[in-house]
Amino acid sequence: MTSSYQESLSKESQLFIKVLENMYHASHIVNIPSGEKVSLSKSYIWLVVRGVIKIQTLNLDGEISILGLVSSDNVFGETLSTSNPYEAYAMGNCDLLPISLIEIEQNPTLSISIFNALRKTYQQTEMLLSIKSIRRMEDRIKSLFIFLAERYGRECKDGIVIDIRLTHQEIANLLSTTRVTVTRIMSDLKESKWLILERSKYVLTQRSTI
Amino acid sequence: MTSSYQESLSKESQLFIKVLENMYHASHIVNIPSGEKVSLSKSYIWLVVRGVIKIQTLNLDGEISILGLVSSDNVFGETLSTSNPYEAYAMGNCDLLPISLIEIEQNPTLSISIFNALRKTYQQTEMLLSIKSIRRMEDRIKSLFIFLAERYGRECKDGIVIDIRLTHQEIANLLSTTRVTVTRIMSDLKESKWLILERSKYVLTQRSTI
Repeated sequence: MTSSYQESLSKESQLFIKVLENMYHASHIVNIPSGEKVSLSKSYIWLVVRGVIKIQTLNLDGEISILGLVSSDNVFGETLSTSNPYEAYAMGNCDLLPISLIEIEQNPTLSISIFNALRKTYQQTEMLLSIKSIRRMEDRIKSLFIFLAERYGRECKDGIVIDIRLTHQEIANLLSTTRVTVTRIMSDLKESKWLILERSKYVLTQRSTI
Repeated sequence: MTSSYQESLSKESQLFIKVLENMYHASHIVNIPSGEKVSLSKSYIWLVVRGVIKIQTLNLDGEISILGLVSSDNVFGETLSTSNPYEAYAMGNCDLLPISLIEIEQNPTLSISIFNALRKTYQQTEMLLSIKSIRRMEDRIKSLFIFLAERYGRECKDGIVIDIRLTHQEIANLLSTTRVTVTRIMSDLKESKWLILERSKYVLTQRSTI
């Protein structure tokens, strides 16, 4: 289900990033090591070249809410958001390309590229909103993993391995539930072989349908 | 809190829509009467000129989930989304401007305008995601009304009147809860004068803080 999607995404994405890298020169790329926070600036939009960036805010309850997992050829930035606080963390090693808002306004090729990148970020946010509307928490978690497999999956001998590692707490922050609930449901999913762990990565098996 | 926000939004929005109307000629504007469904097409992005469009899908539970309330100078369309089904309904009388994807790619002025319109739609979706992460349903409903007051509010003698009418069922579909829960909490909010009804419109009073 995912290999062809990933391939086409990857080709398109490589071309897009190459154009932008040439335009901006590779020296402008910022590397953010795993777990580090990105120092944001209001006059830039950030394009993810490699890796996954976790966007989070605090909700009214004072709890962390994850607003997005922004990856290759998607954009993020305070200027796109009205959330306060708006924090971005690298999940694994990330390369980012900061692009100034002024340049986007002045450069037509760039503005079309950034429009398409924002479209992808938007689609992902809408998908999370849709997943969050599922009442039964087990189905919500299953839907999240199917979404992750479509976005970050690649085929392996046992099914689809997901190339992004989320802790139970992060899953809870994405789906607005508690870590305890996530741990309980994840145990059930592993027991029924809906999900397996392979070299500390999640694998969706043949049974992984809703 | 809202009048200056609304004024600046309104000026910017009027200018933006004027530019687009001149570009496209007013004859291309599509009028959708209250409650009607928009006939979408994959090769167009829709700009809301006047009114509010409700975007909805069905979640896994088979229940309606509202993904956005798209209003003046925001965009929507199947092509921006990966949701299936993706349905758009007019809340009140709406004027829409369909803009072809080909024209957006070819016209730099247009692509920058549509980028900014998508940015606003994205911000709203992210805000709904953030509101949905609030655990306590009373706070979730209060946050929704404060958001609606900021987006669609205007000052009146008793506070901020919200110029958009949502049914209890629509509030439930926006916040992933039941109509019964919404009705119960709304009764409490009216009783405590947090919210009042005036000529069948909601008004946030001086007590309307979280």
